[in-house]
Amino acid sequence: MADCRSTFLDVYSKLKSELLHDPAFEFTDDSREWVDRMLDYNVPGGKLNRGLSVIDSYKLLKEGKELTEEEVFLASALGWCIEWLQAYFLVLDDIMDNSHTRRGQPCWFRLPKVGLIAVNDGILLRNHISRILKNHFRGKPYYVDLLDLFNEVEFQTACGQMIDLITTLEGEKDLTKYSLSKHRRIVQYKTAYYSFYLPVACALLMSGENLDNHVDVKNILVDMGIYFQVQDDFLDCFGAPETIGKIGTDIEDFKCSWLVVKALEL
Amino acid sequence: MADCRSTFLDVYSKLKSELLHDPAFEFTDDSREWVDRMLDYNVPGGKLNRGLSVIDSYKLLKEGKELTEEEVFLASALGWCIEWLQAYFLVLDDIMDNSHTRRGQPCWFRLPKVGLIAVNDGILLRNHISRILKNHFRGKPYYVDLLDLFNEVEFQTACGQMIDLITTLEGEKDLTKYSLSKHRRIVQYKTAYYSFYLPVACALLMSGENLDNHVDVKNILVDMGIYFQVQDDFLDCFGAPETIGKIGTDIEDFKCSWLVVKALEL
Repeated sequence: MADCRSTFLDVYSKLKSELLHDPAFEFTDDSREWVDRMLDYNVPGGKLNRGLSVIDSYKLLKEGKELTEEEVFLASALGWCIEWLQAYFLVLDDIMDNSHTRRGQPCWFRLPKVGLIAVNDGILLRNHISRILKNHFRGKPYYVDLLDLFNEVEFQTACGQMIDLITTLEGEKDLTKYSLSKHRRIVQYKTAYYSFYLPVACALLMSGENLDNHVDVKNILVDMGIYFQVQDDFLDCFGAPETIGKIGTDIEDFKCSWLVVKALEL
Repeated sequence: MADCRSTFLDVYSKLKSELLHDPAFEFTDDSREWVDRMLDYNVPGGKLNRGLSVIDSYKLLKEGKELTEEEVFLASALGWCIEWLQAYFLVLDDIMDNSHTRRGQPCWFRLPKVGLIAVNDGILLRNHISRILKNHFRGKPYYVDLLDLFNEVEFQTACGQMIDLITTLEGEKDLTKYSLSKHRRIVQYKTAYYSFYLPVACALLMSGENLDNHVDVKNILVDMGIYFQVQDDFLDCFGAPETIGKIGTDIEDFKCSWLVVKALEL
């Protein structure tokens, strides 16, 4: 397992190096250094659960058959696409939420020379996914399905983020609109699709499956994602900052978190 | 021509209505109203040159043959995708540049209830492009090329924006790094690809052309885009705010604009 993680990190270095020499853009020295630093700061520092689970899922779908070197690389590349997606959302969410810390260090936009350039860095992170997919999957029969998948999941995540933001804005005046069903809708869209469904869907596509035939898979994974977010909400208040990598502020921020919804039920 | 514009605006209403009832997301009433208002505020209020030029280009490629109703609709939809892309960049650029006005009204993020939710609205605007393309082009032979095209052009635009932002940051300390070639690189990536190449490339794809066979077209359009941006830089200082829809601040912002580069040459 430690080995699996280090193979995965090797793929990160390779993907980063390709992005820093992307022929679609003429880098200046300054801009290449900027992207290098931005990626190292934001992409690989998490638990990597989402990325690693593409490889695990793919292995399970191969039912014990040994993966080829190319399969390990491709599953890892898709895993990194999800980590890139996560980094993109976190960089921008931290700006919107005016957060201070993330993964035990200051949020990227808080660094003195960064500031709101971080908005564009977030966009770049999203664009890197398309570049990685084009570089390594353009010739695969499932390439177009991969693009559609990442597009749809990103759309759902942004929509979930939107109801979260609007609900918080309203909640600051009036908490009565908070409910378990509202909470469920927010976390389903904002967290569950990209964190739980997306890794497995990537592995299914790599295995030649049609996602339309696996709606049951999606439903189960979305439920798991909702359960995960309930835990995350709990830990925002009761988890140790050293463990969760941030100082939770859901309550002071009037977030429609599971704790508030449950408290209001009492 | 007035007729062409009103047909084009009819397509906007149709596309917006589809997005407000997208089955990939369960809207709440609040969130549907939010997106409705956000789109009307940010998408259709410009000169629409980029969008309309998809239709014009496609007509020219058909060499005088009458367009079918479906062709008008599809060319208009692609035109609107470019207008959506433009809106996405403008909403986020205005945040990063801390701008005050755009198209003769306050920037979206300056509206009292909006603020930094505008970051997520920018993301939604980008995601709407993928939704429109999927809804109307999924079955076309050039669908995957359209996705690649929008992805590549967005990537180049974000890279151009990055060197613009980094250069401005450095320029605030030291103007000696500004040069005509730096200016050219910034505007080529930040403006020319999406404003000039993209509309024609969309029309070429609709006509069944392979973009690899038209590199000359790209080069000419990129040069036109650079020339356009030189004019835009000039107008930022010398244009009337009522005409250009904003109060230019390039000089006070230390932007690597054509005027500064030329002044430094003296």
